[in-house]
Amino acid sequence: MLGNFSYCNPTRLYFGDNSLEYLNSELKKYGKNVVLVYGGGSAKKNGIYDEVVEILRKSGKNIAEISGVMPNPTVEKLYEGIEIARNHNVDLLLAVGGGSVCDYCKAVSVSVNCDEDPWEKYYINFEEPTCEIIPVGCVLTMVGTGSEMNTGSVITNHKSKLKIGHVFADEKIMPRFSILNPKYTLTLPHYQMVSGIYDIFNHICEQYFSGEDDNTSDYISEGLMKSLINSSRIANRDSQNYEARSNIMWTATWALNTLVAKGKSTDWMVHMIGQAVGAYTDATHGMTLSAVSLPYYRFIMPYGLAKFKRFAVNVWDVDAAGKTDEQVALEGLDAMESWMKELGLVMNITDLGASEDMIEGIANSTLILNGGYKSLNHEEIVQILKQSL
Amino acid sequence: MLGNFSYCNPTRLYFGDNSLEYLNSELKKYGKNVVLVYGGGSAKKNGIYDEVVEILRKSGKNIAEISGVMPNPTVEKLYEGIEIARNHNVDLLLAVGGGSVCDYCKAVSVSVNCDEDPWEKYYINFEEPTCEIIPVGCVLTMVGTGSEMNTGSVITNHKSKLKIGHVFADEKIMPRFSILNPKYTLTLPHYQMVSGIYDIFNHICEQYFSGEDDNTSDYISEGLMKSLINSSRIANRDSQNYEARSNIMWTATWALNTLVAKGKSTDWMVHMIGQAVGAYTDATHGMTLSAVSLPYYRFIMPYGLAKFKRFAVNVWDVDAAGKTDEQVALEGLDAMESWMKELGLVMNITDLGASEDMIEGIANSTLILNGGYKSLNHEEIVQILKQSL
Repeated sequence: MLGNFSYCNPTRLYFGDNSLEYLNSELKKYGKNVVLVYGGGSAKKNGIYDEVVEILRKSGKNIAEISGVMPNPTVEKLYEGIEIARNHNVDLLLAVGGGSVCDYCKAVSVSVNCDEDPWEKYYINFEEPTCEIIPVGCVLTMVGTGSEMNTGSVITNHKSKLKIGHVFADEKIMPRFSILNPKYTLTLPHYQMVSGIYDIFNHICEQYFSGEDDNTSDYISEGLMKSLINSSRIANRDSQNYEARSNIMWTATWALNTLVAKGKSTDWMVHMIGQAVGAYTDATHGMTLSAVSLPYYRFIMPYGLAKFKRFAVNVWDVDAAGKTDEQVALEGLDAMESWMKELGLVMNITDLGASEDMIEGIANSTLILNGGYKSLNHEEIVQILKQSL
Repeated sequence: MLGNFSYCNPTRLYFGDNSLEYLNSELKKYGKNVVLVYGGGSAKKNGIYDEVVEILRKSGKNIAEISGVMPNPTVEKLYEGIEIARNHNVDLLLAVGGGSVCDYCKAVSVSVNCDEDPWEKYYINFEEPTCEIIPVGCVLTMVGTGSEMNTGSVITNHKSKLKIGHVFADEKIMPRFSILNPKYTLTLPHYQMVSGIYDIFNHICEQYFSGEDDNTSDYISEGLMKSLINSSRIANRDSQNYEARSNIMWTATWALNTLVAKGKSTDWMVHMIGQAVGAYTDATHGMTLSAVSLPYYRFIMPYGLAKFKRFAVNVWDVDAAGKTDEQVALEGLDAMESWMKELGLVMNITDLGASEDMIEGIANSTLILNGGYKSLNHEEIVQILKQSL
């Protein structure tokens, strides 16, 4: 059954190989002072930075910059960006990058006019903003997080070894517009591409593997997973395949813009464990998820057997004839494992720099949620992490 | 491949058995003068009218009414409503009903401040509004059209025997908010319920059966179709099953809010033929679609064989082993026919009051689009209509 919910996703999306053409018309809606936010230089190398700056200049904008936003944006970087945005009297934060840059912009957007410490307020206490929120626009250059059409924002605090995501309630924190050009993703290294693909897949899994009821959301999830599996195989063989990359980009947006979670419970424990691994290793987000996923899903499978069987049949085309439910469910996870290995995903946390002596700390840093088929205790998280080594 | 597109669907949806509780907070966003728009009295019989009026009164609104909006709203009714809305100096049009009432409100919303004839401007010349648009809100009591989250509006002109839908470009014409309570649909007669279900299914088909490329939209469509088939069978056996009705309601919204058409071509010829049948018979919309669908799809199937095969396998679980593509495709359509008969849908236009002597006229009233697998000429439409008798 679909539980009660509300839905409002007003982000305006421009999708396609001409989508940057629409930036100019969007810029007209905002004031003169734009803070351009980007990462480690790939936007400069591939020319997107120059294109965006030219459009901003032609629009008569005053530009300030926050550069060097790292893959796991830190709280120190957040404080730095808030100062730049305040000093520029910012009217629009324009993210040019992937999910980290977009997440970071949202964190700045709710902090510029906030007197409290944003880390404490938003990431420790999960409060909602009470101040005016600065609009965020996004030119997406990497795919996976879905940050282009949601309110999620993940910030890392290395001192306290915490990597925390806050999914804000107010849809004003979603980017007002996002420009999605699949061509921008063609230059990504293979490691980044497949890491993003697994992030997408896991977003769907987190929302799918929860709840016993029959609902439309799970059917949409199955469609998205099948599309992603198909397109990821094409992109893995042929990284310059625009068709596959465009489908992956669009699937990423819908995998995490609240739609497939509507009216149902969700899990998110792979993300919780993965984010704790990330806080200890600074590893690429998608790889932290791939490294812990199969130990986690094999552990919880008996508690959600019907759904894992459905996953095997509907997503992986496992033939159920003459098999027990458990055999079918395990074949589904085996098929998922084959696909993950085919893509070249990292399949254990050792390869990400984690070691056995970190496990207790990682487990302590793991936020325990209770939406999945099995509520985990500390010892069970330790056990899953050991199986992930 | 996903072609270039933009996407912005800002309608705020409240879904669930408590959703009317949110009407009050929405009303605060608009001025005092509300025009309440409803149909033939079922909203009064089942008490929803009284509940809404009480909320409006408690909010201190001045209420005017447009009642008696018919299942296929006429251009004369449109003119009448424009006058009522103008005289009331309307701030908000509040639809309480199904797709017809919601479609009708949109037509009024773009006409109140328009000096030109709305039928000529919007439905004959397909122009966009240049005037200020009156906001529309919706309390949905029937399911099928998706009107609660799109810009579509169908108006019928009996004099010229035309039933024309305009999908407006500006998302401001979407309802600003829609209240979706599956409980309201539990009192619908079986005929209306299954008619709505087939309308939903056909909306998906119109967008699915077009284009040769692999894309995410078609995978989402398959998920929505599978959800709908499953839930419709439950609702057909047990009309009071809230779970099934909630899934049907949510599927209806996503079947026609632009998502599953993004980046691809679409067909819409079943709707064009069905609407012409409707203009001649005034039959229930969904039944005009069910009555012409199978003759149409069997006619175009050879021109889109790969997609019809995919439909058979992915949606109807047809086993393709050892069969030709054509056999598989036909088995898919046979499975669809069995499901339609199981629901008790009208399977021919004779049962809707059409006769052979009307066919030439119906074919002449059919707007010919060219997005499907086969561009039809007049003779082919006549042939399909004869097979639909």
